[in-house]
Amino acid sequence: MTTTTPAATTELETVAELAAQLRVDSIRSSTSAGSGHPTSSMSAADLMAVLVARHLRYDWDDPSSPANDHLIFSKGHASPLLYSVFRAVGVVSEEELLTGYRRFAQRLEGHPTPVLPWVDVATGSLGQGLPDGVGVALAGKYLDRRPYRVWVLCGDSELSEGSMWEALDKASYYQLANLVALVDVNRLGQRGETEFGWNLDAYARRAESFGARVIAIDGHDLTAIDNALTTAAEDTGDRPTVILAKTIKGRGFSEIEDRNGWHGKPLPEDLADRAIAGLGGVRDLVLRGPRPDPESATTTAEPVTGDGARPHYGVGEKVATRKAYGDALVALGARDPRVVALDGEVNNSTYAGEFAHAYPERYFEMFIAEQQLIAAATGLNVRGYRAFASTFAAFLTRAYDFIRMGSISRVDLRLVGSHAGVEIGADGPSQMGLEDLAMLRAVHGSTVLYPSDATSAVALVDAMATTAGISYLRTTRGAYPVLYPDGETFPVGGAKVLRDGDDVTLAGAGVTVHECLRAADLLAQQGIRARVIDCYSIKPIDTATLTAAVTATGGRIVVAEDHHPEGGLGSAIADALVAAGQAPLSLTRLAVTGMPGSGTSAELLAWAGIDADHIAEAARDLLG
Amino acid sequence: MTTTTPAATTELETVAELAAQLRVDSIRSSTSAGSGHPTSSMSAADLMAVLVARHLRYDWDDPSSPANDHLIFSKGHASPLLYSVFRAVGVVSEEELLTGYRRFAQRLEGHPTPVLPWVDVATGSLGQGLPDGVGVALAGKYLDRRPYRVWVLCGDSELSEGSMWEALDKASYYQLANLVALVDVNRLGQRGETEFGWNLDAYARRAESFGARVIAIDGHDLTAIDNALTTAAEDTGDRPTVILAKTIKGRGFSEIEDRNGWHGKPLPEDLADRAIAGLGGVRDLVLRGPRPDPESATTTAEPVTGDGARPHYGVGEKVATRKAYGDALVALGARDPRVVALDGEVNNSTYAGEFAHAYPERYFEMFIAEQQLIAAATGLNVRGYRAFASTFAAFLTRAYDFIRMGSISRVDLRLVGSHAGVEIGADGPSQMGLEDLAMLRAVHGSTVLYPSDATSAVALVDAMATTAGISYLRTTRGAYPVLYPDGETFPVGGAKVLRDGDDVTLAGAGVTVHECLRAADLLAQQGIRARVIDCYSIKPIDTATLTAAVTATGGRIVVAEDHHPEGGLGSAIADALVAAGQAPLSLTRLAVTGMPGSGTSAELLAWAGIDADHIAEAARDLLG
Repeated sequence: MTTTTPAATTELETVAELAAQLRVDSIRSSTSAGSGHPTSSMSAADLMAVLVARHLRYDWDDPSSPANDHLIFSKGHASPLLYSVFRAVGVVSEEELLTGYRRFAQRLEGHPTPVLPWVDVATGSLGQGLPDGVGVALAGKYLDRRPYRVWVLCGDSELSEGSMWEALDKASYYQLANLVALVDVNRLGQRGETEFGWNLDAYARRAESFGARVIAIDGHDLTAIDNALTTAAEDTGDRPTVILAKTIKGRGFSEIEDRNGWHGKPLPEDLADRAIAGLGGVRDLVLRGPRPDPESATTTAEPVTGDGARPHYGVGEKVATRKAYGDALVALGARDPRVVALDGEVNNSTYAGEFAHAYPERYFEMFIAEQQLIAAATGLNVRGYRAFASTFAAFLTRAYDFIRMGSISRVDLRLVGSHAGVEIGADGPSQMGLEDLAMLRAVHGSTVLYPSDATSAVALVDAMATTAGISYLRTTRGAYPVLYPDGETFPVGGAKVLRDGDDVTLAGAGVTVHECLRAADLLAQQGIRARVIDCYSIKPIDTATLTAAVTATGGRIVVAEDHHPEGGLGSAIADALVAAGQAPLSLTRLAVTGMPGSGTSAELLAWAGIDADHIAEAARDLLG
Repeated sequence: MTTTTPAATTELETVAELAAQLRVDSIRSSTSAGSGHPTSSMSAADLMAVLVARHLRYDWDDPSSPANDHLIFSKGHASPLLYSVFRAVGVVSEEELLTGYRRFAQRLEGHPTPVLPWVDVATGSLGQGLPDGVGVALAGKYLDRRPYRVWVLCGDSELSEGSMWEALDKASYYQLANLVALVDVNRLGQRGETEFGWNLDAYARRAESFGARVIAIDGHDLTAIDNALTTAAEDTGDRPTVILAKTIKGRGFSEIEDRNGWHGKPLPEDLADRAIAGLGGVRDLVLRGPRPDPESATTTAEPVTGDGARPHYGVGEKVATRKAYGDALVALGARDPRVVALDGEVNNSTYAGEFAHAYPERYFEMFIAEQQLIAAATGLNVRGYRAFASTFAAFLTRAYDFIRMGSISRVDLRLVGSHAGVEIGADGPSQMGLEDLAMLRAVHGSTVLYPSDATSAVALVDAMATTAGISYLRTTRGAYPVLYPDGETFPVGGAKVLRDGDDVTLAGAGVTVHECLRAADLLAQQGIRARVIDCYSIKPIDTATLTAAVTATGGRIVVAEDHHPEGGLGSAIADALVAAGQAPLSLTRLAVTGMPGSGTSAELLAWAGIDADHIAEAARDLLG
């Protein structure tokens, strides 16, 4: 039986057939793979059948159409259901579903990723799809200004993640009536019952208190689902909608329905056969739901304000790199209407506030919710915006899982962390980014930048605008002299030789570049000529410049960094030199090895042993 | 004027004097330091004055008394207020307050840390004090079974952190009537108004929906505060209490009251003088509130079940290290009644479920809330419990900020991450821990362990029980042959030489140890004798064993790791060899450089280039 039904007219009787097919295909795909989550798929099959057949406005032949609704599986483990939907709309074949799911070098991965053109973001770390959806919905309402809707299928278990409440909070704060969360309340988590089981009232009270319109339904009653989705699609004007659907895990096969112990387990073949037979056997229904109004895909040119001239600073002028970030972002925003900015309630510290002032319509305050900060940037990127997300470097650690997932989502995230290292001084260790370089370097495909002055900071912000993947700019709290004149270029992957000398190499980044320069002065007084290198690009690192310097200086190099010793600049340099087979090599690494307290910048740089005196001393020790 | 008042009888008239003193001292300390948050302190001064004078049961001469109440400043930036309280109870001198605050090498740091004996946990990254308090309250109710209460001063801004709602969720789930959150709703954040300003109703609806008893008051009405704290101290039996206090930022000095732009700014001296004069000048009130009932400090011996015999495995038997973790933890739990376990709703995957089954009264299910998972472990550690917290390695990234703050809190956190690397296979990259080693290595004072077999896993779990600071055990999904016989010892910082040979060194950890052994077999067929090293301790790493091996094998070493190339085993080894001045050195590092998809373990290890074939090939290349 093959049926192709025109948009929006599919009867619920056919939808019921579709739901049965989605269940059968969820079972078939996971059993064929020998792994996967059929029961978590079966509970949500009715929700997805009604949504896809009658409400999701999507042109399956043009997944990149800006008019399309968005469908995000926040419960990414229900991938058998999602892929079964893809088969039902005719974009994935039965063969692919049965031989490609969870297999090596195939695109139907265990959890969905944007390797598939109909998937916006990677999910599978729970509690991220809804926050990402907030970002897409922000784009729809405030930037695209198009009527598309963002539908997010959520699990009940993931409502225990705080990030889900950050998402609902921001969805109501920003009045995202275009966002609908469908919660599949199937009562059972991985290892047992959830905190609330089928207590929909408990979830409803919470979601309502966070500003959502709540609709509670029987998630297996197609008419109820259809009515709920119709209501959800009606614009509330100011509130997101949360549909709480009471469902049964494993629904459709009585031997596993609502039973603990069946999470993440494919049915053995004999059970699968019985289940499929009971569900009416294999179907080959192909049907599509409504398509978006093509009018809604038209683009209006964005007005651009300001002249876009890059800020200039005089050499020797004292300017904080965080200030240069703000200046550069304002200039970039004038040149590129797709640049947007977000911040975690510290925009007067990170200087994202300059952008907020210049382009209030392209700035989103995320308040103190770093996970949602990164998720919103992810969602905005899905819609093609170049989002810069800033907070203190230390607080980006709050969102590491979101950054990691961003790399799997293949989005371009532009992250800016201010107040790096002990340099910040009096505020103490809780505010000091001392793990951020290690954290960001370890992300797949990331770019890690750390300017020492305002001129290079501006150039690197410009570079980030066109850098693919996760890029990170580390900025410094204090104001330090501008080192580079206008027009100097700073390619990603490069380094600058600031002083020439053949006795010893001194390498730093950010604040320690200034300490290296002072150390070179101290050494010069003793007749020692140091070569000073500004490693503004930490990943990729400039192996050629470093090996040339180290070779010229007899293998002697001192690296100083305002970061813990593991995984930062020193590791990047050691990795590069060892990989290059550098010999001889006498590398001294200075980093923050103790637990800092408060103090002035100078006191703490000295205490950590990364100031000019210590660098000079280390250089003298190398020279013996 | 110096007054010492006996416990609990301080009149509100005196409390008002105390509140004025706290404001004056908050101004004085921050102005003297030239930085700090006086206005955020002044808003909460009345709350703290009433609490400390009349409700907090605390023996200031014995801060480690198990009978004491706990006071946590979740809004750690209000440190001037906290330190002013410490002066008012006579444990910090006026001189220290005025010359030590935020100064180098002093204990009154910019944000509170347990360098001070009256501080339980470091705060300053917002949204962590209340989650930590949940851990202390869990200890009080379920383990200590003592009547102490946990009072947490929260900011209104930090209610936008999802972790605060994870905390309230768990506080109500675990019926923590001994937990009281005092929220200082002063309306203003760092860069402007909060999302809700003074809309206490909005906060009340949320807190009530999350299961809390809510009391809303005027936070400057001492009688109202006193009544609220009296009510809060009355046992609800099953609910935490949230006191929403409407306050004025900068309260007590009209020139700055409720004004934006005064966050985190000390008063200039002239303003400080006027403010202090207006507040009645400097006071020297010393008073203490009620002391705890000494009876409540008595300890009853914990019953211990099971024989505590360590699990044994036969060499060659296939056992997953995650299973060995569960077995080892059960045995450890029998020997040590202070061992407790927590997990993030995956205890059937991490095998923490074995402990939950054996000792249900010492197991806390945190559901899918990794931030609260780590915070609860932190709070339990405050009360002396040895908490092991487990989830998938990938999902520990969710809690990196909490782990980082744990190190500043000087707590011993025992973290276990299962399902590391591409080895997990079909589930795909969202579930693969590929950044965890870099993340944990970069934490100050951390210990990073990665056993290759069940015998070493058991030994390392035992070692973690007495390891100070943040320790991390990485476990593997699949079952691999036991390599070591009973009785083998695995000191932290050691490594094992599994094969001897002088041609090339092969170093691995966890799953890659087995690949290195297979590679050695392949190489042996070609007459190449490889030395194989099991680096079960990644931080600290065994430099002596590595340098001996590399020296013996002509500088040739291949390192294979199931992790991204940055910051993991390869970096640890490169760092160690370079620091040791190893020469010659020909180091080939094999790691996961691409973005994985799904597949079998074998397919993915081969795809990543970290399986036996690739290791052998790299070794041959080094020899070629």
